[in-house]
Amino acid sequence: MESDIGFKVAFDEAHKGADEGGVPIGACLVSADGKVLGQGHNMRMQKGSPTLHAEISCLENAGRLPASLYHGATMYTTLSPCDMCTGACVMYKVKRVVIGENKNFLGGEEYLKQKGIEVVVLHNKDLQALMKKFIKEHPEEWYEDIGEESK
Amino acid sequence: MESDIGFKVAFDEAHKGADEGGVPIGACLVSADGKVLGQGHNMRMQKGSPTLHAEISCLENAGRLPASLYHGATMYTTLSPCDMCTGACVMYKVKRVVIGENKNFLGGEEYLKQKGIEVVVLHNKDLQALMKKFIKEHPEEWYEDIGEESK
Repeated sequence: MESDIGFKVAFDEAHKGADEGGVPIGACLVSADGKVLGQGHNMRMQKGSPTLHAEISCLENAGRLPASLYHGATMYTTLSPCDMCTGACVMYKVKRVVIGENKNFLGGEEYLKQKGIEVVVLHNKDLQALMKKFIKEHPEEWYEDIGEESK
Repeated sequence: MESDIGFKVAFDEAHKGADEGGVPIGACLVSADGKVLGQGHNMRMQKGSPTLHAEISCLENAGRLPASLYHGATMYTTLSPCDMCTGACVMYKVKRVVIGENKNFLGGEEYLKQKGIEVVVLHNKDLQALMKKFIKEHPEEWYEDIGEESK
């Protein structure tokens, strides 16, 4: 699944975010027939945005879509989704969520499963290292991004 | 609670959305000490946005805030929040969610309560009528907004 186009796009989006000095998380929404519907990365630092997490950024960039397109789609995200992004996947009833890693942050994976959404975790070492480095170098921005007070 | 500044702002935001021909849902985030931190309304039709529901729009307009400010805050929304907006309130750990009405749509109220967030429903007749009218006149846009196929 690491060879999927969706994963590659999400992976590149995370690195684009890192290159911009932002929170390095990327996402990509792929239709049932393999077409990239949208892609994006976390824009907290670039746009001063508290809501443009990678998955929200990706959904926003995909634009308005018919409900049926979401229902067969897969959301690829480089990091386990927070409650907001989990909720967005539940609301739009995507079929599957493929997660690059959940070592640095464990989000709403159980809730996705409860709602009948397939969850795949890839445990990607590159993404684990990318996120670990960001959290070490920018703890304040990281904890702000998940609504927690800096530790 | 209908006399709260937060409710008034959210109510006016919903009507602003209606005047613009959009999905008439408004929201307002108020700090523990009663200060309006942000406000907004659904921008699906105005901006072609699939993620700017009222609550997300409100959080986005509030900008980046320290986690501690959310923790004591109240999110006022004119309609019961969908899974995405519920998740946003859970992620940012707001203290309370005040809901104008839940007759036209029942969202994640139980999930909010499970997460320890206080939920108040006002059953406001004006908001019930406003939403009912929109759903009757724009069923396709409404169902698209909640990720469901038009009935």
